[in-house]
Amino acid sequence: MPTVRVYVTLKPSLLDSAGRTVTDSLQKLGFDEVKDARIGKVIEMVVEPYDEARVREMGERLLANPVIENFRIEVAG
Amino acid sequence: MPTVRVYVTLKPSLLDSAGRTVTDSLQKLGFDEVKDARIGKVIEMVVEPYDEARVREMGERLLANPVIENFRIEVAG
Repeated sequence: MPTVRVYVTLKPSLLDSAGRTVTDSLQKLGFDEVKDARIGKVIEMVVEPYDEARVREMGERLLANPVIENFRIEVAG
Repeated sequence: MPTVRVYVTLKPSLLDSAGRTVTDSLQKLGFDEVKDARIGKVIEMVVEPYDEARVREMGERLLANPVIENFRIEVAG
């Protein structure tokens, strides 16, 4: 059964305020080596049968908001 | 500058209600090939210098909730 991961991330030009909070919090804890953190989500699905075009359509119609987000698809066997 | 991704996922034994909603919604849209969807998050960080043990500590102390979540680390050059 193919496991498919769809990674959804905010477009790079947009301010990621949750990511900014994570960066600040990590630095406050002493992790000064963290320069920039951005947060995305990953949807892991069992898709049988797998068809990349259809998974792309899922991303466009439901999983991501194409106005502000990018997504990429990865198949994990 | 090493880009590090920390993937945080709910432990498999726990009910993922957001993932369940995504599965149901995709099936309602006609994507019947989706059997099970689970949702996680990914924190993408620039970490310089990179030290795996320290990134693991970030995961345990701030990025994941070890009671209900697992995480894994990936370095992307």
